[in-house]
Amino acid sequence: MEPLKCSLAIEAASVPLRRKISNYPEPFFSRMLKRDKRALGEFFGLKTFGVNLTRLAPGGESALMHRHGKQDEFVYVIEGVATLVTDRGEVELRAGMCSGFAAGGVAHQLVNRSGADVLYLEIGDRQRGDSVEYPYDDLAAGLDADGQWVFTHKDGRPY
Amino acid sequence: MEPLKCSLAIEAASVPLRRKISNYPEPFFSRMLKRDKRALGEFFGLKTFGVNLTRLAPGGESALMHRHGKQDEFVYVIEGVATLVTDRGEVELRAGMCSGFAAGGVAHQLVNRSGADVLYLEIGDRQRGDSVEYPYDDLAAGLDADGQWVFTHKDGRPY
Repeated sequence: MEPLKCSLAIEAASVPLRRKISNYPEPFFSRMLKRDKRALGEFFGLKTFGVNLTRLAPGGESALMHRHGKQDEFVYVIEGVATLVTDRGEVELRAGMCSGFAAGGVAHQLVNRSGADVLYLEIGDRQRGDSVEYPYDDLAAGLDADGQWVFTHKDGRPY
Repeated sequence: MEPLKCSLAIEAASVPLRRKISNYPEPFFSRMLKRDKRALGEFFGLKTFGVNLTRLAPGGESALMHRHGKQDEFVYVIEGVATLVTDRGEVELRAGMCSGFAAGGVAHQLVNRSGADVLYLEIGDRQRGDSVEYPYDDLAAGLDADGQWVFTHKDGRPY
């Protein structure tokens, strides 16, 4: 048999941090500096969905308020208290709580309004031709033919 | 806006148990009686991947040793100590540890050799035309055109 490309299992917190902090252009990029991600699924070579162990420091946010056109998403809180902000209302997420966001559903983001870190798992699929709508910001995103995110203003001008 | 079909978030442990214990035919079905699952992703209407909160009582197993032809899988242990058994060796998974199984990779199962329950999240995508290989049991599985699992003996005879 081929040698294993990585160990059979790992402590999630010991997977290296993702080097790229965010794909967003400024002024949105800087809002993501209180967030870090460990790409757990990628560590094991998974391709059809991603699983990240994400940490939000106090004041941090998971992403801009957004909804995907094709991607389903899911979050499960491991530690701390996050606030799930949506265009249908807000709710506190404590350890052991979860939420899911079907493609085209509620716009959402997690924010950390507490004084301690929040640690959660986030899962998203890898649908081709996905797009993202940002209801509160002058930003639009789409996946290009190479699977790279392209960000523009809402009127289509590049950033 | 349309009314929300379910709450924005939920305590994972309060999602109802899946009624169907296992799709396996006997004598394999009975081996799954020490396992229960809460379909968290389905609760939120997700379609491209599933997220289950799964509990193994002492002596329980997650599944027969298997590998998927197309589906990527991932597990994250929340509570207790599971043993990950694979065709490349075994390793203990404690809370905060994770493992991923790329389609066509190592055959695997989780077993609970401890004296306490094990609680973990399991994630799998929903690739059409998936199949499952069971290296140690006279069983083969494939998804039919309606997305239902069909189990046969390895020589193709039905169960």
